Amino acid sequence: MKNSAYFAAALCISLVGSVGSAAADDKSDANKRLVMDAVKMLFIDHKVDQAVDTYFAPGYIQHNPLVPTGSEPMRGFFKGFYATNPGSTVEISHVVADGDLVAVHYRFKVKPDDRGMAVVDIFRVADGKIQEHWDVAEPVPEKSANTNGMF
Amino acid sequence: MKNSAYFAAALCISLVGSVGSAAADDKSDANKRLVMDAVKMLFIDHKVDQAVDTYFAPGYIQHNPLVPTGSEPMRGFFKGFYATNPGSTVEISHVVADGDLVAVHYRFKVKPDDRGMAVVDIFRVADGKIQEHWDVAEPVPEKSANTNGMF
Repeated sequence: MKNSAYFAAALCISLVGSVGSAAADDKSDANKRLVMDAVKMLFIDHKVDQAVDTYFAPGYIQHNPLVPTGSEPMRGFFKGFYATNPGSTVEISHVVADGDLVAVHYRFKVKPDDRGMAVVDIFRVADGKIQEHWDVAEPVPEKSANTNGMF
Repeated sequence: MKNSAYFAAALCISLVGSVGSAAADDKSDANKRLVMDAVKMLFIDHKVDQAVDTYFAPGYIQHNPLVPTGSEPMRGFFKGFYATNPGSTVEISHVVADGDLVAVHYRFKVKPDDRGMAVVDIFRVADGKIQEHWDVAEPVPEKSANTNGMF
């Protein structure tokens, strides 16, 4: 092998160790895009049927204690919620994607002048669909011990 | 260039596109380890001084509305909390790391027989220290619309 081939091969070997984690990172990026598209369609555009049919697996495993498990109960929950609260909004603060999990941190408001709630959703993605969901929600308090806000 | 060199160089070029994201993924992995070490020391082992001195930047930006900003108020908060609640526990459910952000989802209990709270902390890491923190916390309810639990 000539020097140029040796150099190229050695460079390759030094890069190969990174490829496994690069593949994992590519997966994280793809899952982040999928979840952001789903969140925009469901939470911001309120297109419940389109979002559920496009992005959520029928066997969707629900960990939010207010909603029965499965994608159909979720469809019913959001259709009912948006019918009653058409002005509800979501402002996304952070998105953290790692392998099959994507965490989304946002302020949820029922009405524009609410202080709203701080929420983190964690979605698990597999086979091009959102398969599972956990969340935590907390009302934004009137007063805070610091001036940094919750977002 | 001989065929072997050409092949090796072409393979390299196909891999180089992955290297930027691999570097980002390495950073995520390192930050995940740092945050897990900090969380274990602070939340599980209750070693407040050691955790604050080792892992938290003095200018730590606090978004939890109960605690003033900075690492010293956080030190005081946890020392007071653990003095009053030495049996409090944390069981980690998910860790999601992406670039400089690490989200940790866990059940927090003040006493062993509590249902506890579901919490997500999001930490921002830079320069080998935790620089900023957001969180959301929700009591685990007695009843749920599904049997999947909150974790």
